Formats: sequence, structure tokens, C-alpha cells
Amino acid sequence: MLNFQNITSERLGSHALDLEGALSDHAARLEQAQGALLDRFRAGGDPYLGWMDLPRGEVLGDVLALRDRLAGHYDDLIVLGIGGSSLGGLTLTTALQHPFHNSLASRPGMRVHFIDNVDGDVIEGLLEVLDARRTLVNVISKSGTTTETMAAYLSCKAWLQAQVGEKYKAQIIATTDPQKGILRPLAEREGYATLPVPPTVGGRFSVLSAVGLLPAALGGIDVEALLRGARRAMEHFERSAAHNEILQSALVQHLYGEQGKNITVFMPYSTRLRFLSDWYAQLWAESLGKNRQRDGGSARVGTTPVKAVGTTDQHSQVQLYREGPQDKLVVFVKVEQADRGALIPNAEPDENEMNYLGNKPYQTLMNAELHATAYALLDAGQPNYTISLPRIDAEHLGELLQFLMLQTAVAGELLNINAFDQPGVELGKVLTYALMGRPGFDEQRAQLEAEGITL
Amino acid sequence: MLNFQNITSERLGSHALDLEGALSDHAARLEQAQGALLDRFRAGGDPYLGWMDLPRGEVLGDVLALRDRLAGHYDDLIVLGIGGSSLGGLTLTTALQHPFHNSLASRPGMRVHFIDNVDGDVIEGLLEVLDARRTLVNVISKSGTTTETMAAYLSCKAWLQAQVGEKYKAQIIATTDPQKGILRPLAEREGYATLPVPPTVGGRFSVLSAVGLLPAALGGIDVEALLRGARRAMEHFERSAAHNEILQSALVQHLYGEQGKNITVFMPYSTRLRFLSDWYAQLWAESLGKNRQRDGGSARVGTTPVKAVGTTDQHSQVQLYREGPQDKLVVFVKVEQADRGALIPNAEPDENEMNYLGNKPYQTLMNAELHATAYALLDAGQPNYTISLPRIDAEHLGELLQFLMLQTAVAGELLNINAFDQPGVELGKVLTYALMGRPGFDEQRAQLEAEGITL
Repeated sequence: MLNFQNITSERLGSHALDLEGALSDHAARLEQAQGALLDRFRAGGDPYLGWMDLPRGEVLGDVLALRDRLAGHYDDLIVLGIGGSSLGGLTLTTALQHPFHNSLASRPGMRVHFIDNVDGDVIEGLLEVLDARRTLVNVISKSGTTTETMAAYLSCKAWLQAQVGEKYKAQIIATTDPQKGILRPLAEREGYATLPVPPTVGGRFSVLSAVGLLPAALGGIDVEALLRGARRAMEHFERSAAHNEILQSALVQHLYGEQGKNITVFMPYSTRLRFLSDWYAQLWAESLGKNRQRDGGSARVGTTPVKAVGTTDQHSQVQLYREGPQDKLVVFVKVEQADRGALIPNAEPDENEMNYLGNKPYQTLMNAELHATAYALLDAGQPNYTISLPRIDAEHLGELLQFLMLQTAVAGELLNINAFDQPGVELGKVLTYALMGRPGFDEQRAQLEAEGITL
Repeated sequence: MLNFQNITSERLGSHALDLEGALSDHAARLEQAQGALLDRFRAGGDPYLGWMDLPRGEVLGDVLALRDRLAGHYDDLIVLGIGGSSLGGLTLTTALQHPFHNSLASRPGMRVHFIDNVDGDVIEGLLEVLDARRTLVNVISKSGTTTETMAAYLSCKAWLQAQVGEKYKAQIIATTDPQKGILRPLAEREGYATLPVPPTVGGRFSVLSAVGLLPAALGGIDVEALLRGARRAMEHFERSAAHNEILQSALVQHLYGEQGKNITVFMPYSTRLRFLSDWYAQLWAESLGKNRQRDGGSARVGTTPVKAVGTTDQHSQVQLYREGPQDKLVVFVKVEQADRGALIPNAEPDENEMNYLGNKPYQTLMNAELHATAYALLDAGQPNYTISLPRIDAEHLGELLQFLMLQTAVAGELLNINAFDQPGVELGKVLTYALMGRPGFDEQRAQLEAEGITL
């Protein structure tokens, strides 16, 4: 199991949360949140909790069948998706493929490219370097109305059509709602292979659905191990608060938020986990950044996630974290063991200032820096905790992802909000439609023009 | 010139700063800050302001000579550096090279790889895919004592030695202090080519020194244009406050900081500018995150930068920015014109929900989303401003980088702090030495052991 180390409470009492005391004060509330989530999930039919069922792997057979049919016939996969439709796959491939997978002469899986923006220079640039005959496109949108994704889809489809003719239909896979939306009928009309996004799974909770599993599987990743790890997190989540690191870490987050710390830094010490920070930032921000309407009043809640990577950002952010305002909780992710066990070479004898590094594992230096930074931040009154994983493999990463989703869901319960919707993004969408001249949005367009906002 | 649009003050008065009023209140203070910086710079000998002199391009001849000597003989460049020694080069190559430069069959410059961590799996992974006979290594460290960089240097040197023998000496370039530190004598002993980091230029202000210029030049970027743009920002900086967008934007940042907004989101609408966010985050955090000791009291100052990319992070962060706490100032960067002018293809007639996109430029959609998001955030009481650049080329990027460095320097003056040092990172370094068993740090090691912190 992952090891949640509440460094904060163990050391430097003055800045520390007394976790044992807090647990005894809040165990009932934590177990109430846990019970609420588990009861709703087990009762079935909850509109939001489908992600708790994903570790069972209902879609696994379809994903593996598609992989087995396609593997060997294609070199490149373009994933079209934005937000939750890309960050999961990006996290998995960056963490679990060879760090320079795309440059390997012989690869155990496809190269996976993510188009997650409407940057025409980047989209055209990618199509310029790929061979259309050897490229698959996976378009991912639950509704099919995601503007950014569907624009890129039109470009990729036109490119395939121009290069391979009617065969393009065999090279596009649509991952979308099993019934609703416009991408499903479009895919069926065109004859694309399809995979489902369960209606009860939101984008930021979809990494272990076909959304994340297909790109991972085509990229050569052991997706069964991912799910096995996630199931372990689900088992852990059933424990009582005293033995439940998901509940405990959610409580730490919650209490520091209540103390007014409005920033949550997420800082894995691993270059391979750099996109885990992006994935977590979406999960945390979109789930918990809410205008809570309760009891006749409203409150704007949610801490702002800051993405970081150790050791790299020690040379970018730690000056601020040490000396700047005490407005942060820092979450470290530690990797106990590197895959290769690479050693730092011995320095020449006269390079005496480097001698102390010689013949020590890189991972020892990495974790020395993590411990040193955690301590230095505590010394400056900046609390932090560490989640350790034994190594970066599919099983432990699957466990960590499910751990963090469960932690976020519990944090939502503690805040008394719905952690699974995102009503705040609607206005931006509507205004974009208005500015782009979509029929039906004349009123909003007139309003923007009156404010002097035009393209 | 770049166009600083204080959207905030033009629209939606209720949440807006009255820029004209604020300017007349603060013009004297702004011009005092401007004068202080310019006077210190012009007087010469200031220990921190060497970056204001970099646009003159004193090192340009040496950089171009090195490029001309090496170009064509090598395919890959590994840059070893962390923080300010990598983020500038990374920003330049990501923005200005072809978006998939490393996959092009024929390239106008080398592939540039940045090693900015002690992740042994990544370092070994990179060396596995490169051809040592065709690879240069640029080791960048002002002092030569940057642990992370020097560890990676030992690995790269050992790899080159094993593969090409004594020729390795011609394949390593050291960018370091012209006199001091341990890398300079090491490089001279080994016979490496060297370039200087002026002693008066800190890492986060070094992008237009040899630190950023050499990787850019070897990557095929027009470094003369970069400097030309930076000189334009220097000229602009001399204007009076009423016509000086650097001073005005620094004032906006400062006033919102004073109002208690402790988060600065930096959000270019461009995938190619994604590392500009990382570069800016370091510049802002390390310069302004300070424990100010003045007049017998102390104050922890500095807002926390949050890296974002539009449109991508609309699907990750905007829910929080719209509905969560009103604790943010958002800085957008808008690109007026894309390089390729790519169009979104027409949809099939029956794909009616996508028809409105057909035949419109991607960049129109990109900027519609920026305007829509800026407006939607203002509607939610989250102020923002936009910096526009006509296009992403070397000249405008050089101008933007110098603009942001000047803005940060002015913000430091307004906060009454030294924006150019980083005393807060020292403890973490010392504790790392202690944990790694470096001689001379026994006392700290004993202290850590007493606290239960060991590896």
C-alpha cells in the first residue's frame, strides 16, 4: 500500500497539526463522509459515482481486444481530448512508458500524441511529421460537443481522408457516451470503432475508464495492473478512520483549508510524474472550487492547486515557499525505488566538491532533497505531508490515482459540496459560441458587442 | 510593441481597478521605482542588474561563432541545468522551434534535450536513445556547485568518455561564471569550450545571456532577433508612467496583491508558450517571495504564481476561478496571429452542431475563448489583464521576456524588497548535503537524525 506520512504531525510541533487529536475529534465526520459515498455507490444508480466502479474493469475486455486487433499495424496514436479526456492518458504514458519512448528504435507500444488545445500551428505541425497510413486517431468527448476536441477531429479526419481515402474509417476510434451526445451517432454512421464513457463518470474521474485505458494499452502499458492497484485503494478506503490514509489525508487537507491556507502545492519528486501534477490540479480544482449554496447563504470554497515537480522546482518555487506568506499546504510524492537504480558516477579525484556524490544512487539524492525540503518548509512554518509509493509501475500508479480521487471525493463531502459537477464553466462556453457566430447565441453576442468585446 | 490591455479597468466597473485613477495616485512612486532601477543600472557596477545590459548582446559574437563551428556536426544537444539554467532555453525552443522539431526528417537546428532533475531513470533513458558521436553537452551552472546539474554532468561525461574516448572534451561546453566557482577551472583543465554567465545576472534573469542564447542558437533560433525585441522593451521602459505598460502592469499586480489577492495565474493562450508559464513562475516566485525585514519588523510577501495554458486549462482550472475564492489575479497572454493561419475544416452537412466552426481560423477560436474566459472571470469578480503579442517569433518573444523581467523588478521595488537574491533556498541545500554525507555537515546530520529524519 501507499504510505501516507503525515510528516507535519510527527515533527516540529509548533507548526504541526496534531493528527491523532484531529482524528479523534473528526473520526465520526470522516466516517460519515466515507459511509455516504460508499452507500450511494453500493445502492447503484448514483449519477456521479461511476468512477468508483471502474477498478472492476468492465471495459477491460473491449480495450484489450481493440489493442490486440490494432497493435503492430500502427506506429502512432493521436489522442484528441481536453481536460479530463487527455490528462489521464498523458499522466499514464509519461509515467509508465520509457522516458524517451518516442525516440526508441524498437518500441513496446505506440507513440501517443495528445492534442489538447486549438493551437493550429501545433495541430498542423503534428500532422506534418506523421505517416497517415500508420496513424490512429482516438477522439474522446463524452458529449461530442467539446468545441476544441471536435475542431481537431475535423482536421485529423480531413488529413486521413486526403492521405488514405476511405480507409480512414478504420483508423478513428471514438470514446464517448454509450447513448447520448452527437459523437456516438456520428461514429456509428461512419463505422468507427467505439468505446464508452459511462454517463456516471465525469472527465476528471475517467482515467481508469476507456478514456485513459485505451491510450495506455496502445502505448504498451499493463492496464490490468493499473486496475489491480486501483482495487487495492478501494479496499483500503473501507477501513475505519484510524487506519484509513485516504480519510486521514483528506482531513489534513480540509483542516488546513479551514485555517485559511488557500493554496495546495502538489509536488512529486519525479520527472516521470510531472503530469500527475496536472491531472491532480484538474481533479482538485474542478471538484472542490465551488460556490456553495447552503442554508440560504453562499460561500466560495476550494483551495487552488499549484503544480510542481521536485527537485526541479526547488530552484523555482522553494524561495517563495520558505520566505513568502504561510498560505500553503504542500503535498509531496516520494518514489522509494527507481527502476534502474542508476548511480552517480565517481568524480575525478581533483573535483573534490563533487566527491561526496560518487557511486551513490540518483534516487538517494532525489529523496535526500525531498526530506531536506520537507524539513526546511516545516522550519519556515509551511506544513506538508508525503505520499510514498514503492516504485513507479502500473499497479502503484493505479493505486495512487484512485487514492487521490477518493481523497478528493471525501474532501468534497467535508466541504458539503457536490464534487462532481462543474457549473462554472458554462458561461465561458456560451460566450465562445456567441463570439464564433454559432446560431442561437445572438443575444449574448449583442451583449458582448455592447461591452466592446469583439474579435 | 506588445499591447498591455487592462481589461479590468475598461469593463465591468464593479470589479475593476480604476487604472487612470490609480496611475495618477501612484505615478510618482512608479517613476521613483523606474528611476531607481535605471540609475543603478546606468551607474554601472550594480551586483544584480546585469540582465538589463544583456539585450546589447555582448556575448552574441561568441555564441554565433560557437554555433557556426558546431552546426552540422551534431544532431542533439543535452542541456544540463536546473531552474534558471534550463527554463529560459526550454521556453525559447518550445516556442520558436517547429512544434514537433525533434520528429522532423530534416531540421534547421539541433534537437535540444533538457535534463533538469536528478531522475536517474530519465537521465539514463535519454543517453540510451542518443548517439554519443553526434551529441553535444552544455553544462550550465554559475557556480559549478549545483548538485543536480553536476551529478548529471558526471553521468554525461562518463557516457561520452565510454563511447568516444578523449574526443569527449570537444563535445562539452560549460556555461559558468567567468572567474569564480569550480566549473570554470574544471572546464579549463579539461579543455571544454566555455561561455560566461555574468556575475551580475541571476539564473532567473539569464535567458538572454549565453545560458539561453546558446541552446537557442544551436536549436536554430534567430537569437539576434530575440535581443532586438528585448532592446525594444528596454526602450519602452524609459517612458513616463502614463505611457509605460511595464510600469502600469506592475502597478496592477501590486495593487491587487495589496488587496489580498495572493495568487497570480499566468495563462498564455498557446501550447507553444506553455513553458513561458514555468519560466514566469520562477521569475515571479523567486524574485518576490521574500521575508521583508524593514524598520524593525518583518513581513512575508509575494503572491504565488500558478502556471496555466489556455484553452487547455479552461477544462481544468476555470471552474475554480469562476466559483472559488476571489483570491486571484489572472494574466492572459494573447497571440494575435498564428504562424500558419490554419483553418478548421468544414464539417459534413449533417454534423450540424459543428457547422459554425467550419472554415474559420483556429486562432480566431483560440482568441474567442480567451475573450470569453476573460469576460466570464470578470463576471465572477476575478480580475485579469491581457498582454498581446502580434505573433510568436523571436523578436516578440524577446520583447515579452524583457517586459516581464522589468515588470518583476518594478514589482520588487514597489514591495521594498531585493528582487534579485534567494536566501530562502540555503537551508534545503545544506540539509541535502548533510543527508548525502558531504564532509563538513556532521552537525546538521546529527540534528536531522535527532528529529528522526534519515534516508
